[in-house]
Amino acid sequence: MTTLVFGHKSPDTDSTGSPIVWAWYLNEIKGIDAAPKLLGEPNTEAAFMLQRWGLEKPEIIADVADDQAVVIVDTNNPAELPANINGADVQAIIDHHKLVGGLETKGPIDITIRPLACTATIMHDLIGDDMAKMPEAIKGAALTCILSDTLEFRSPTTTDHDRAVAEKLAADLGINIADYAAEMFAAKSDVSSFSDAELIRMDSKEYEVDGTKFRVSVLETTAPGVVLDRKASLMDSMTTVASEDGVDQVLLFVVDILNEEAILLVPNDLVKTVAKKSFDADATGDTVFLPGVMSRKKQIIPNLKV
Amino acid sequence: MTTLVFGHKSPDTDSTGSPIVWAWYLNEIKGIDAAPKLLGEPNTEAAFMLQRWGLEKPEIIADVADDQAVVIVDTNNPAELPANINGADVQAIIDHHKLVGGLETKGPIDITIRPLACTATIMHDLIGDDMAKMPEAIKGAALTCILSDTLEFRSPTTTDHDRAVAEKLAADLGINIADYAAEMFAAKSDVSSFSDAELIRMDSKEYEVDGTKFRVSVLETTAPGVVLDRKASLMDSMTTVASEDGVDQVLLFVVDILNEEAILLVPNDLVKTVAKKSFDADATGDTVFLPGVMSRKKQIIPNLKV
Repeated sequence: MTTLVFGHKSPDTDSTGSPIVWAWYLNEIKGIDAAPKLLGEPNTEAAFMLQRWGLEKPEIIADVADDQAVVIVDTNNPAELPANINGADVQAIIDHHKLVGGLETKGPIDITIRPLACTATIMHDLIGDDMAKMPEAIKGAALTCILSDTLEFRSPTTTDHDRAVAEKLAADLGINIADYAAEMFAAKSDVSSFSDAELIRMDSKEYEVDGTKFRVSVLETTAPGVVLDRKASLMDSMTTVASEDGVDQVLLFVVDILNEEAILLVPNDLVKTVAKKSFDADATGDTVFLPGVMSRKKQIIPNLKV
Repeated sequence: MTTLVFGHKSPDTDSTGSPIVWAWYLNEIKGIDAAPKLLGEPNTEAAFMLQRWGLEKPEIIADVADDQAVVIVDTNNPAELPANINGADVQAIIDHHKLVGGLETKGPIDITIRPLACTATIMHDLIGDDMAKMPEAIKGAALTCILSDTLEFRSPTTTDHDRAVAEKLAADLGINIADYAAEMFAAKSDVSSFSDAELIRMDSKEYEVDGTKFRVSVLETTAPGVVLDRKASLMDSMTTVASEDGVDQVLLFVVDILNEEAILLVPNDLVKTVAKKSFDADATGDTVFLPGVMSRKKQIIPNLKV
């Protein structure tokens, strides 16, 4: 049986690239028949990575069969995984998020979770000396994952180790990190083909604070103006998305990668209060600037108050 | 704040020794103030280990305070941990059991679960080159953990890697494994000071099959006769324990370490049926022999049918 390797349902670069890295390792080094899969359409940065390194887009799957051998990467949250994940034969989990509970395994398996910025960094460490055998395209995917998750080392989730691994990969590949990251972020910032609802749901996690359910959406971009030009229709769409997804409020943070700040859209008094209580920010109009805020995991979620 | 390192509530050798190993590593190598703790009285083999290697018995704690820094070893099951474990600040988990779900962490932390026989083997790998700095007493604890969890390499949970690590530790310490394991198992087999209910609960996990709740108890011994002499009162106590613990039936497997078999006590028709359906064993009297059965994790739980 082919072991399926996949990340979460909203495939960003790490959830697209890390399955490719790990499937290579299983196939070529461990002699285990494995294939990367996707649980949804990759975002534009992930699509750029595939094209840039000549990698085939992994097949998108809807669910997994009972007893299907799988490796889960970049999440341990059943809500972000196929409906039948607890029916599958989970062989390993490699992740860098908090343990949320809910995932069960049938026996003792390999689980490696580390407080690093990126799944690909953990994989680099697990692969060890066999990194020397990794083809350029796979190294390119790993590098792209780390630059994406760290926002080129700007995100406060970045550790010295993530940076060191990325710099080693870039040196091996003869890649100039600044130039390459600029290309990646330009690809990520091209959101013209997405509807407002798609943009809101693209990189989004549900989170409850004192009984209020939020969908906390982040849009990382080097061109915030392009997103803010769509502010009015995005705000309309926030109401629809909240209602369809059974949450009380969508929070949309437009993260300006180059200026290292977030712009929170403020459609109503609830979000105005959230801005004040969570970030001590006074929203006067329908947006509020949050200097230095770049990470949902480190800066937004832990501070969220209502 | 001192980081507390502990295993599960019924401290066997691995859940007593591994916290000592890891607290040494945190203190001496990582420069993190840490102390091993116990969540209950160690069993007789664990007590032997402490005495043999001149190690202080860790303090027994009843619960953990909110935001207490802790490292969990040898389990990931909240039912086997302090009541307030999800209020604590869990820093790391090192374990070799299946993921049961239920445990949550406040942020991304270090989690290492491996399908090896013993937590101490995983710690050996994580400690890496710093093993050279480990004092003899700590190495002795690690060796004892591995020989205990593998039943001196007889248990089917044993991997080549567990064996190799134990043999290296024994060589470093100048220990003859066969002689030392015989001493350990003699200590474990001295159950004279325990009541029947204590024996039943000493190494026991709850497990439900098709709506029937079992307490699956294992007694590993080199002297099964000593236990079987108490068969009548043990069977009486099984009824009391089942009622007190809210399960339908206690299953007591006396594992004969040297003969590599288990003896299942058969107090009633339910257990007789379990023996037949699970192990194809025909119980004629009030016990049934199960040749080769030594591991609850690998052989008992996966086969249990009712």
